[in-house]
Formats: sequence, structure tokens, C-alpha cells
Amino acid sequence: MNVLIVHAHHEAKSFNSALMHLATEQLTAAGYQVQVSDLYEMNWNPVASANDFAQRKNPEYLVYALEQRHNYEQQAIAPDIAAELEKLKAADLVIFNFPLYWFSVPAILKGWIDRVLISGVCYGGMRFYDQGGLKGKKALVTLTLGGREHMFGEKAIHGELVDGMLRPLLRGTLAYVGFEVLPPFIGYHVPYIKPEAREQILVDYKNYLANLDSLTPLRYPHMDEFDSKLYPK
Amino acid sequence: MNVLIVHAHHEAKSFNSALMHLATEQLTAAGYQVQVSDLYEMNWNPVASANDFAQRKNPEYLVYALEQRHNYEQQAIAPDIAAELEKLKAADLVIFNFPLYWFSVPAILKGWIDRVLISGVCYGGMRFYDQGGLKGKKALVTLTLGGREHMFGEKAIHGELVDGMLRPLLRGTLAYVGFEVLPPFIGYHVPYIKPEAREQILVDYKNYLANLDSLTPLRYPHMDEFDSKLYPK
Repeated sequence: MNVLIVHAHHEAKSFNSALMHLATEQLTAAGYQVQVSDLYEMNWNPVASANDFAQRKNPEYLVYALEQRHNYEQQAIAPDIAAELEKLKAADLVIFNFPLYWFSVPAILKGWIDRVLISGVCYGGMRFYDQGGLKGKKALVTLTLGGREHMFGEKAIHGELVDGMLRPLLRGTLAYVGFEVLPPFIGYHVPYIKPEAREQILVDYKNYLANLDSLTPLRYPHMDEFDSKLYPK
Repeated sequence: MNVLIVHAHHEAKSFNSALMHLATEQLTAAGYQVQVSDLYEMNWNPVASANDFAQRKNPEYLVYALEQRHNYEQQAIAPDIAAELEKLKAADLVIFNFPLYWFSVPAILKGWIDRVLISGVCYGGMRFYDQGGLKGKKALVTLTLGGREHMFGEKAIHGELVDGMLRPLLRGTLAYVGFEVLPPFIGYHVPYIKPEAREQILVDYKNYLANLDSLTPLRYPHMDEFDSKLYPK
């Protein structure tokens, strides 16, 4: 089984980076083939632009998704995107490892999503949610944040985390392209906790990774439940 | 009254850019001082990193928010961030004008949020939500997307848009730093509609902008309702 870890932390010595290393080592020891895209180390360019396309279907007017499809077919998409796409296509499991910025992914990781999850491969036409182009693959979000667990919940100050703040990522992005989305692994309050509490998070993550196969994916839309909504008569 | 429009579209001839121009012209004609941060045109760097700080409180280990505070105090924050901060501080209304990418902002705009909404000025300590550092300012999200209106809603295929997919932006970012968040202006299905339908969106936006003062902001958390949650006994 192939694993791709997409990692986005600016500090190599961070606890967040330790989670990435733990996953790399543990999954490798368990016999998985693990690749890491360390976006800061790669100096990843997050900006979706005309520079991503060596050819243009329409040189006068940039429709990004159309040029993604065209340039992918022509093998003319930017080499950094093409390399990530190959890793993505080979992966059975993709782990997104990042610190929560503004209840969302850091811009450098948003730019991996914007540029790599291309139309025509990952989604397009009626291929989305359980019919998405990445159907058959699993995705795991592993994140750290400053907030505490009790700050999240229906009536808590920030509202729901997994079903609320993370919805555009878990549902609108990962489920949308067809991933089975595993329940995210969340390290709360990381900048403020004691070494023992951090150690406990590492132990919990170890156990989590040891039991990946037994996790029930989150439940997201199935296309056949929505036909009438998608094609109004 | 000062208006800052933060604009993030890669195609200057796009309909999304037309919305930005419409707002600029109409609000200027109405007597507002309007500035535009056109992120693609500025070649804005979205990546939060050590390069943002000319000084370091801790040169060995980067905690981004701590260095934001330190470098702001020392006037040592990167010049591109400092320039945006000045525009932001001068603004009474900030309009975020962008195409929806993955039910969220494009990476280049996420990077404006990550880098410009700095700790110590926009939030920090107990200053968030109605106590946020940008209290007294208004924010308006103006976005275009490919999806249709009927694809959103509690039981629709993508779930809620304003209360769901946009929650990390509207609540977790804009309300968090203290903005009064106006109801977003949304142009649905833009790539697929006829010129007359686009024209109608422009008319609607014109009316929307003409009545900014009468709009009721969205309702988000007030700190005094959550004290017991924030400080558990």
C-alpha cells in the first residue's frame, strides 16, 4: 500500500512535524511505501495561475479548470503539479498534516489543493463525491491547533470543528474528489501544553495509525441520493 | 469612509474582476475612498514563513504568531505585510472579492489572511469575536462560483453555503477578528450563464452596494456569552 503525506509546517522542529515523522516511520515499518511532500521544504508554489500551463486552449482568457484538463491531456501542465499528481495517483492513502490556520489549511497547502486536484482527473462532469476521480483512495487529516477541545461543539464559542469549520476541507474537497475520509486526528492546544501531554498525543497517534483499517470513514453525500436536486426538471 | 477591496482573480477580464471594478467605481462615485489590493497583479506572496520577520524573538524555533507580535512592535515585519496592514487599519469596510476554490478562498487570498491578520493587532489574548482587534470595521465577501444555488441548503448535495462551507471564513476569520460581517454577495453558476444573467448579477450587486448601510450583519459569537466555556473551573 502506498501512502502520500502532504506536510505543511514552516518549522522543521515543530510538534506538527514530529507527527509527520512518526507517521512516516511507523507506516514504513508496517510495510507501507511512504512518500512525503514537505511543502515548505519543497518551496511549493501555491498560486494557481497562467504559469501552470505550457499550452493554452484559450490564450486570450484563462479559465483555470479548462486549461487544467487541456494541459493534462497534452502533458503540458507545470512539472511541479505533474510530479504531485503522479504521487497522488499512486497513493492508496493520503495524509494531510498541518497546523490549523484560521480554522483552515495554511495557504501553502491550499495551493497544493488548488493546483494538484485537477479537473478531468480528480473531478469533472458528474464525477464527484462517491463518484469522484479519486474513488478508492482514503484521506486522513492530521492537524494541530492552539484551541482547546471544549471550545468546539454545537454551542461552544467556535461551533463544531469536524462538522463545521473543517467542512470545506473534509466534505467540499476530500469527499468531493472521491476520497473515503477518515475521522481526522486532532492535537489540541499544542503550543500551550506540557511535554507529557504532547507525548500522550504521540502515543494516541501511534495507536490511531496502527488501527487505520478499522476506522469508519465519515459519511458524505452519495450521488444517487441527489439526482433530482442536480438535474431539476 | 475608507474601503479596501482585496481581490484575488487570475484573469483581469473575468466577470469576478468586473464585480471588483463595479464596486470600485460605484463606491468612489458615492464619495468613499477606495483602495484595491489586487493580489495577482501585486504578485502577492501567500506563504507565511521565517522570511516575514527581519528580527526574531526566538531565532532557533519559529512560532509564527509570536514573531508577528514581536516584529510588529519592532517595525520589523515584512514590508508587503506592513503595507497591507496600513490599508487594513485605515479601512472602515473591507471587501473580499474572489472566485470560490474548493468551497473556500484561493490560496493567494488565504495567504493574505495568514500573513496580514496578525496576532497582537487583529486578535490575541482574549480579543476575538465581538472583542476582536478589528472591531468597528465591516467586512463583505463577494464571491463567484460554478455551482448553482439549489445545490446548497441543509439537505442539498453540498450542504449549506453561508452557514456551512463559508463558516471558517465568515465566522472563523472575519467575525473572529472583530469585523461586522455583512451577508455575502454571491454570483452563482457564473461560468455557465448567459450574458443577460451576468448583467443581472451586476445590477443586483449595484443595488446591494447602494444599500450597504441598511444590511444587517450576520450574527456571530459574543464573548460575554461564553465566559464559562472559555475559562472552565
